Amino acid sequence: MRPTGIVTLLSDFGGAEAYAGAMKGAVLAANEAARVIDITHDAPAHDVGAAAWLLRGAYRYFPAGTVHVAVVDPGVGSARRPIAARAGDWYFVGPDNGVLTWPLRYESPAEVVVLEAPRYMRADVSSTFHGRDIFAPVAGHLAAGVPLARFGPRIDEPVLLDLPQERISEDAFSGDVVSINRIGNLITNIAGAALLAWLAETPGRVELCGKTVDLRRTYSDAEAGILVALIESSGMLEVAVREGSAAERLGAGRGTPVRVTRAGRG
Amino acid sequence: MRPTGIVTLLSDFGGAEAYAGAMKGAVLAANEAARVIDITHDAPAHDVGAAAWLLRGAYRYFPAGTVHVAVVDPGVGSARRPIAARAGDWYFVGPDNGVLTWPLRYESPAEVVVLEAPRYMRADVSSTFHGRDIFAPVAGHLAAGVPLARFGPRIDEPVLLDLPQERISEDAFSGDVVSINRIGNLITNIAGAALLAWLAETPGRVELCGKTVDLRRTYSDAEAGILVALIESSGMLEVAVREGSAAERLGAGRGTPVRVTRAGRG
Amino acid sequence: MRPTGIVTLLSDFGGAEAYAGAMKGAVLAANEAARVIDITHDAPAHDVGAAAWLLRGAYRYFPAGTVHVAVVDPGVGSARRPIAARAGDWYFVGPDNGVLTWPLRYESPAEVVVLEAPRYMRADVSSTFHGRDIFAPVAGHLAAGVPLARFGPRIDEPVLLDLPQERISEDAFSGDVVSINRIGNLITNIAGAALLAWLAETPGRVELCGKTVDLRRTYSDAEAGILVALIESSGMLEVAVREGSAAERLGAGRGTPVRVTRAGRG
Repeated sequence: MRPTGIVTLLSDFGGAEAYAGAMKGAVLAANEAARVIDITHDAPAHDVGAAAWLLRGAYRYFPAGTVHVAVVDPGVGSARRPIAARAGDWYFVGPDNGVLTWPLRYESPAEVVVLEAPRYMRADVSSTFHGRDIFAPVAGHLAAGVPLARFGPRIDEPVLLDLPQERISEDAFSGDVVSINRIGNLITNIAGAALLAWLAETPGRVELCGKTVDLRRTYSDAEAGILVALIESSGMLEVAVREGSAAERLGAGRGTPVRVTRAGRG
Repeated sequence: MRPTGIVTLLSDFGGAEAYAGAMKGAVLAANEAARVIDITHDAPAHDVGAAAWLLRGAYRYFPAGTVHVAVVDPGVGSARRPIAARAGDWYFVGPDNGVLTWPLRYESPAEVVVLEAPRYMRADVSSTFHGRDIFAPVAGHLAAGVPLARFGPRIDEPVLLDLPQERISEDAFSGDVVSINRIGNLITNIAGAALLAWLAETPGRVELCGKTVDLRRTYSDAEAGILVALIESSGMLEVAVREGSAAERLGAGRGTPVRVTRAGRG
Repeated sequence: MRPTGIVTLLSDFGGAEAYAGAMKGAVLAANEAARVIDITHDAPAHDVGAAAWLLRGAYRYFPAGTVHVAVVDPGVGSARRPIAARAGDWYFVGPDNGVLTWPLRYESPAEVVVLEAPRYMRADVSSTFHGRDIFAPVAGHLAAGVPLARFGPRIDEPVLLDLPQERISEDAFSGDVVSINRIGNLITNIAGAALLAWLAETPGRVELCGKTVDLRRTYSDAEAGILVALIESSGMLEVAVREGSAAERLGAGRGTPVRVTRAGRG
């Protein structure tokens, strides 16, 4: 896979701190020609699941050969391993704590190595900031075309998050809210394609928090202020209020159960 | 106009989400050599007027040939058209909802097309995220030198915001607060050059919220904590408190009336 | 020193405003090939000391020849001078108000010039936005290889902040909290290397706000919720709570005194 020189960064360091800047410097010190792109540095602090979800929403839109770095790393300095991977068309670098769950589980081929070779790290690796001292320089070298196998030995069982699964029965397609975005839209783990296949041509009714919401095609099908369910841009069922917050309106949060039934069957 | 390969992004997606990252990926997937620059992704949600103002504050400082993408798009998925334009020395891409009002009204020549050609969009255009699926790839292609006319047919009447106008009488130059920045400075729609011409050599007195403030040259002419009126960096009359918030001090907001008189005439 | 074309930006303009975007445009208008990297635009407003600390945390990780711009500039428009410097392996641009204290004090050789040559500024320099009109274009030209001496005459006494100093006695190594990061970690002005040399092989006990905290090696040595002291990633003594806020727990802030004793000596 031809490297593009593009390195993306995702972290929980906070956009008002110097840590993200230090990481960018360390990428460029390893590979001066690298092109550094921010995904976000405002992932919820220490929340590996939220960061994995954010990475899922961005990585696949980048050109083949892009190197994605994801550092939400509450276990830094402990025995958790630093890893790099090729999964599908992209490279990934981060702690082996589940933050890379989506690409490692759903992209193939996937190949994962433990980062061991000191020559691709900063000379003086701290115990508290592997983003700067290990992950950033490794990403820089990967983006320069260093083969994955040079960074360390292959491993077969990286840590993967135990993702909540949607449940399908005769009468209902059930799941949970897995993410809430900044305007209060509730994103579920119910894949739109599977849901629409299950509904066939029947209209869908979405139930959560004691309310029932019709499944529509776009935000603009609804008036401002009205609850609406639709398939959001990464392909999942979402409940939203046009120009408002569904999370506030419904008192819903991560983990809130969601159930879809076929409207024609009451 | 020679393309520079530079693509700027302005949105209300929020800096803590994956959406801005997905857009950057889509720009680079369309044009791997593009150079992506963030203006901001923290424009006020759904506020087309605020985003138009933010774009006004940044676009003209970029080199000729830069492509500016502005996505604040409450009507995504409705009949509102996606457009691209050349206006003055720059290209612009976004929804046809007024977010491009400043360049389209004040730069010339201006030429606007509706985005119709599927070959410059992502293969699978969602109904909820045209930033990623239409605007970003179009911007990438524009930055690679694809001529504007290839994207779709020309239109003559893009949507423009009805901007509040300043009013000039014998005794007063009047306008409104149109923006408040993060430190609480009140920026008006009164153009500094026109105001200074009207004042001629007379000192100006600015009235708002029942207070009178002298027009000065720089922040540092005033002591900390004192209200001051001056011409801000984008050329408009501004009321500020050095090291404080004029908005809080005065209880002013967008739409607050502002009136300037000649000091010598009481 | 070979220029890299990399220009970093650090300011208190706020990530939700257009000002940072305008600065990026002005860098690229001066040097279209420049590569602009954000450190942060959310430095605390008007806080020169905080910005100097943020710059300290990032500049040294970038390749030799990088140009760092730091604009926290409450005195813009006053007599404070605009400066550029070479210090150690990097270039620096900003107001002469102490924001460049760390590189100017600790890197050598250091050479500072006052920015006077209009040809390297924007044609129309405002009195309120030197970031866009002076610092950004100067940075672009420096990154293109224009020699430092061309920008203006050399000065020998740039403004440096009067940094709080750590105090060493027979029984204690004392200092102060100088920064609090977003997750509430308290960073002190006690250099880890000097502290560990002073402790020799004795375990250290850190006292602040009436509490005593053991000095450890990594976050992961402590259980979640427990106060821990360690040497943070930029080399300073830090007090933290794993997965919590030490600032909140202790009621500590910038200026809180910190005292380290040798554990064996009670």
